Amino acid sequence: MPIPDEQIFPHATGNAISTVEAHKDPQELVFYAGWFCPYVQRTWITLEEKGIPYQYKEVNPYKKEKHFLDINPKGLVPAVEYHGKALYESLVLCEFLDDAYPDRKPSILPNDAYTKAYARIWIDFVGKSFVPAFFRLMQAQEADKQDSARTELYEALRKFAAQAKGPYFLGEEFSLVDVAIVPWITRDYILAEHRAYNRQDVSAEWKRYADHVEQRESVVKTKSEKDKYEQIYGRYLRDEAQSEAAKAIRAGRAIP
Amino acid sequence: MPIPDEQIFPHATGNAISTVEAHKDPQELVFYAGWFCPYVQRTWITLEEKGIPYQYKEVNPYKKEKHFLDINPKGLVPAVEYHGKALYESLVLCEFLDDAYPDRKPSILPNDAYTKAYARIWIDFVGKSFVPAFFRLMQAQEADKQDSARTELYEALRKFAAQAKGPYFLGEEFSLVDVAIVPWITRDYILAEHRAYNRQDVSAEWKRYADHVEQRESVVKTKSEKDKYEQIYGRYLRDEAQSEAAKAIRAGRAIP
Repeated sequence: MPIPDEQIFPHATGNAISTVEAHKDPQELVFYAGWFCPYVQRTWITLEEKGIPYQYKEVNPYKKEKHFLDINPKGLVPAVEYHGKALYESLVLCEFLDDAYPDRKPSILPNDAYTKAYARIWIDFVGKSFVPAFFRLMQAQEADKQDSARTELYEALRKFAAQAKGPYFLGEEFSLVDVAIVPWITRDYILAEHRAYNRQDVSAEWKRYADHVEQRESVVKTKSEKDKYEQIYGRYLRDEAQSEAAKAIRAGRAIP
Repeated sequence: MPIPDEQIFPHATGNAISTVEAHKDPQELVFYAGWFCPYVQRTWITLEEKGIPYQYKEVNPYKKEKHFLDINPKGLVPAVEYHGKALYESLVLCEFLDDAYPDRKPSILPNDAYTKAYARIWIDFVGKSFVPAFFRLMQAQEADKQDSARTELYEALRKFAAQAKGPYFLGEEFSLVDVAIVPWITRDYILAEHRAYNRQDVSAEWKRYADHVEQRESVVKTKSEKDKYEQIYGRYLRDEAQSEAAKAIRAGRAIP
């Protein structure tokens, strides 16, 4: 089912448009983005956290430019062009930015080997347990499927929140664990409005964590207007979305 | 459906038993393992590659010891106990070993930020595209489902092999990309004998890569006898296995 281009608003809005405007000039690092995409927001937050100079380029998912496809044949966003070579995958990009710009503090992963591994366990949990449950609840059509998806989502979030030291997951320092989950926190009003989700119903710990992390400056600066996201997520709520994530959830496959 | 304990052979055999015997003494790092598990083999290979002193402890998945469950409540293997704290997740453990023992060469990830990110993209591909396809083909019962699962597996392997520089994925250096995929290469005779899989049918590049990487000393040293694996994989071939991976594939979920 082809989706008319018109249904995707063509550029960032709200706070995010100022951030885009501030990153128009050519730089060594080009950030290929889609303003609406939560995976893109992970990488965007990391760029902002580290203060890395970057050029923002909006990719229209239905009209991809030749140069972008030349360097990145799968055409996925987020992607980064660095010295003429492309990289993709949101979390790979976040770690790449940490590795390629070691002098741009703060690092988004702890230095201590044990704590870094502990962080990776929970980043993995976000990707394997939380994110699929979020999409599954959004895409569920029948009441019983919504109920079981909500239960599954709440269980995942309770496990996560029970481990969160506060105010951030690892304690005082904002880290890649927070980066991995926060784009879906900024979008959870979609579930609150349409799928009877409530932060407090998950747990007091979750509400405290979510209320706090969404206030982080890098998160606020990369957010567009609520109603623009709603146009996108309406397609998920009707289970008509054709993103890779939406199709994977529908097919009972891992999100690629 | 409970699986009788008797069906799991209780310890490593073949080359792997000598490796186990050489790692009986107490060490700062305790490696909790199941000799039959491909995820365990990833971590085991990394320990061997880096020459890290470790104590091997076989975990009977149906009779887990109290101390193991105390430090690692989910009871998953592979797990590592390090200074009294537990870590799990095979690839997290491999990276942890690299971080915690920086002087034990060689590193399993490239130093260059771009190449490291490129490696991570393909490690991610192994986990999301290849491994689920491998299990799906093993567990498929009807001929048409086996055919589509085999097609999917071949497509994933062709993409991977087309990127492999040779002799290892990144070139001359054995890396975490090879570690991530090789345990399933050492087990692909199961698919060859029961699911009409053939390395040459995938591609000449794949056959060349697979034939080479399975000869790596750390891989050979952590392998048990073929017939012992066959007892395990018989349950997968009849789609009766109750591992987390088997259940996830059956339910159309991501492997946790």
